[in-house]
Amino acid sequence: MTLKVFVDRMSQPSRAVILFCKVNNIQFEEVKIDLAKRQHLSQEFAEINPLRQVPAIVDGRFKLSESHAILIYLSGAFPGVADHWYPADVSKRAKIHSVLDWHHLNLRFGAMKYVFNTTLAPAFGRPLDPKAAAVAEKTLDSSLSTIESVWLKGSGKFLLGSYQPSIADLSLVCEIMQLEVLDEKDRARILSPYKKVRVWIEATKASIQPHFDDVHGILYRAKEKFQKQREITTLHSKM
Amino acid sequence: MTLKVFVDRMSQPSRAVILFCKVNNIQFEEVKIDLAKRQHLSQEFAEINPLRQVPAIVDGRFKLSESHAILIYLSGAFPGVADHWYPADVSKRAKIHSVLDWHHLNLRFGAMKYVFNTTLAPAFGRPLDPKAAAVAEKTLDSSLSTIESVWLKGSGKFLLGSYQPSIADLSLVCEIMQLEVLDEKDRARILSPYKKVRVWIEATKASIQPHFDDVHGILYRAKEKFQKQREITTLHSKM
Repeated sequence: MTLKVFVDRMSQPSRAVILFCKVNNIQFEEVKIDLAKRQHLSQEFAEINPLRQVPAIVDGRFKLSESHAILIYLSGAFPGVADHWYPADVSKRAKIHSVLDWHHLNLRFGAMKYVFNTTLAPAFGRPLDPKAAAVAEKTLDSSLSTIESVWLKGSGKFLLGSYQPSIADLSLVCEIMQLEVLDEKDRARILSPYKKVRVWIEATKASIQPHFDDVHGILYRAKEKFQKQREITTLHSKM
Repeated sequence: MTLKVFVDRMSQPSRAVILFCKVNNIQFEEVKIDLAKRQHLSQEFAEINPLRQVPAIVDGRFKLSESHAILIYLSGAFPGVADHWYPADVSKRAKIHSVLDWHHLNLRFGAMKYVFNTTLAPAFGRPLDPKAAAVAEKTLDSSLSTIESVWLKGSGKFLLGSYQPSIADLSLVCEIMQLEVLDEKDRARILSPYKKVRVWIEATKASIQPHFDDVHGILYRAKEKFQKQREITTLHSKM
């Protein structure tokens, strides 16, 4: 029975799971759960994931949610996944867990809240909130600073000094990619102080091409749409 | 070389790591990093953990932070840890990761922000913030509801329907324990709707005694101190 992956490509952890399957030649069926249409709140989807969030997977009779748990499960359950994604070595594995645990209340919290409160909120019927965005930007900036000075301190191009990407690189880069939908000057202001971070993002992208751009196509199109909206708003404000 | 555990027993993830060592007979040296004295911000501690947070461990030359990563590492690196804490079975392990990943932006975020904004803030030179507390209480309540209806759905007394505790039970119960420092009527209001949660907390405590009460002694004393402070404040407001 084929692995089923329940995702919305507009969700960054969903993109991480799809990319992991593609780059590791794991056969899967992609089932779209449209967040904008609130399909994740349906009773039918609650049978798959009672937390009503994407991504979620069904592998035979086994159901699982939370992207990091899914990435780790796929690494163990599917033969052929290269060791560098989730090394068997206890110490290397522990360091990857450390980054993934850190991620939730730092990079994920900061990036998600900043993008929501500066850009996405109206699409969910909520007003933009500059004050909440300013608070989120502090967490986002501090997280990028930690990636630059702690997680990218080693000699390799990837997190924890590695020479090949792990599931931590995949998860964190997919999270940062949502900054694409911001106004370009905001995105530049946020990322420009962190040279190592910018080099690492490009290295991670390159290691997963052509899948990376394919799976992020929806985000690149959203970027254009939000940019056009901003231009129209600016034009109206000058009229 | 003995495992060194850098902790402040006032921190709930610190307590989880200490308890795990004690209950599994892992020999360790407890090194206190006093958060109230800002010892976690010292340059000396930054050599141990550049994130400047507790808990952190040093095992020989290996350094690690983040409590979940530490609990998983200890399960693998120290022989004699019973399988139920972190099962070798890929599917059982995946479910535990799922709970632990969920924890950060749900139970931990809600409980930590609620306790800080209703009780702890003045000790850190910050004002109490009823508005932030109200927002946090929603996350806390929703998290307890998820534990009750999703994670405790199975037949066993522990999370995921298990008959013995895992590192997920340990981590989540230690987090909830910080509610002890609240005014009793607030604690009762928050926990009373969730009977399964209350039974599960007691089962988890019982499975780790006498260590549980020993390690939580500092919290029980803090509870008394905060209660006395509240009584004095109430008395003054009536004079």
